[in-house]
Amino acid sequence: MTPDPALHNPDNIAALEVVIERAVRFEELDPMGVMWHGRYASWFEDGREAFGRRYGISYRDLYANGCLAPIKRFNVDYCRPLRHDAVYRIHTRLLWSEAARMNFQYAIRDAKGTVMTRASTVQLFTDPGGVLLLDHPDFYKRFLAAWKNGELR
Amino acid sequence: MTPDPALHNPDNIAALEVVIERAVRFEELDPMGVMWHGRYASWFEDGREAFGRRYGISYRDLYANGCLAPIKRFNVDYCRPLRHDAVYRIHTRLLWSEAARMNFQYAIRDAKGTVMTRASTVQLFTDPGGVLLLDHPDFYKRFLAAWKNGELR
Amino acid sequence: MTPDPALHNPDNIAALEVVIERAVRFEELDPMGVMWHGRYASWFEDGREAFGRRYGISYRDLYANGCLAPIKRFNVDYCRPLRHDAVYRIHTRLLWSEAARMNFQYAIRDAKGTVMTRASTVQLFTDPGGVLLLDHPDFYKRFLAAWKNGELR
Amino acid sequence: MTPDPALHNPDNIAALEVVIERAVRFEELDPMGVMWHGRYASWFEDGREAFGRRYGISYRDLYANGCLAPIKRFNVDYCRPLRHDAVYRIHTRLLWSEAARMNFQYAIRDAKGTVMTRASTVQLFTDPGGVLLLDHPDFYKRFLAAWKNGELR
Repeated sequence: MTPDPALHNPDNIAALEVVIERAVRFEELDPMGVMWHGRYASWFEDGREAFGRRYGISYRDLYANGCLAPIKRFNVDYCRPLRHDAVYRIHTRLLWSEAARMNFQYAIRDAKGTVMTRASTVQLFTDPGGVLLLDHPDFYKRFLAAWKNGELR
Repeated sequence: MTPDPALHNPDNIAALEVVIERAVRFEELDPMGVMWHGRYASWFEDGREAFGRRYGISYRDLYANGCLAPIKRFNVDYCRPLRHDAVYRIHTRLLWSEAARMNFQYAIRDAKGTVMTRASTVQLFTDPGGVLLLDHPDFYKRFLAAWKNGELR
Repeated sequence: MTPDPALHNPDNIAALEVVIERAVRFEELDPMGVMWHGRYASWFEDGREAFGRRYGISYRDLYANGCLAPIKRFNVDYCRPLRHDAVYRIHTRLLWSEAARMNFQYAIRDAKGTVMTRASTVQLFTDPGGVLLLDHPDFYKRFLAAWKNGELR
Repeated sequence: MTPDPALHNPDNIAALEVVIERAVRFEELDPMGVMWHGRYASWFEDGREAFGRRYGISYRDLYANGCLAPIKRFNVDYCRPLRHDAVYRIHTRLLWSEAARMNFQYAIRDAKGTVMTRASTVQLFTDPGGVLLLDHPDFYKRFLAAWKNGELR
């Protein structure tokens, strides 16, 4: 598979990661007693929002800066089922990219660290009317510069 | 990209397709006034269930035959946003495979036929306790035989 | 219980009713195999929207006329559980009221007509900024006049 | 209104209360930018489950004791809309009752203590097959005795 040019990373800048916890709710279970496959998007959005709050690039920050970041692609690999009341960790990592998009990778792990689910999303930047931005908004450029300079962890 | 061996199809057996309609509900909209990206799984499940009822391989048929078909992988490409009250068509196609799994492809189209969304799912067969079946259940073999013989459309 | 003054109806104007069908989706089931109690709001909104489209008072009609009708109260009585794949009828009735609010009553019935669920909602009228309207919007007055004159069924 | 005989409380036993916090998710917002009215059931279930874990009467405890407690009635009063990212408190109170049912009352409050929402649920006890229990299960009797004796707070 050809490497994704949007993920070109000659300086080997390390991904940023935020980890949160979440338990499976009764309402998220299907009749098999495991989380319904269509419910996971909510978990990854929780991860992405926690990431955004930590680094100042949440939906609200984007919106305050006149842009949106709609999801363009969403992939999930269901490795092991999630069960009621168990608490899992959602690992949310943003990969370095100089293209005008956000590439997140996710892993849901149980208490022992076993990977239950892997996923990824691709987001583009648009103006509030939905018109694609070909370059990063300024506030996001500052975020990238700080990241590249090793000021973020 | 190497072709997926599970989709090996030397006899060029045509995919089966079922088309249904669905409108976007108010509750499915996000604050941007378009369908929230995490709601689409419900639409593809509607497509898959309509497919299953038409060909006798729905969740209920599977269950009655002592097996489940959990979703192992789910990919979505969001091409254009879905809007309130508009009616869309969900095209659900099962690709021919002799491996013990189901490979569905989906397209959501608007009234003019424009593709709004593309997606795919991969399902494996398990027994009710979640143990992987390495071969197709008998009722599914009969479905495949009828398909191969051109008895289904 | 004192009668609700908003439902004062000296001319005995009959309620208007619209009936639609809906099946329980797999995703709506809880681990007991019945529809989760928190999913019913979606069913009554379907009923209300079908009612609105039939009589020109849907969310879109309201919005086009510069008003909203947020839900102020929601009551549900769960008489019998709803099961997968079964098709039910949602009966949505608007009660006559001269007050600036909408009082809907709902019944979900199975194929034999047995009542599975009863519910009601109360909606108020506001402007788009959320400020309460003390009188009906004009288009709604025309709807009430036509109803009172027996022009609607 | 006649007092509800199930809430007969001659000894004036004080209600038990558990308070948790929850923020509104992006996915819970409707196009008006406020939480969709049909999403609140999830919040009250969170409150009820936190209550259940604290006092040993959660869904899991019930199930382990061979019984279920399906929701029979659900009432909500939407006083003020809930907004994105704001953190609210869910107050969940169980009212004393000697009848074989659970009567919960809920209030959602903002950071200043203003009531945003009031709600109540009534649950009955059944066996796993759904047959109504006319008396409390034993473990629940022990919970009631401890409550009456002032051992719980």
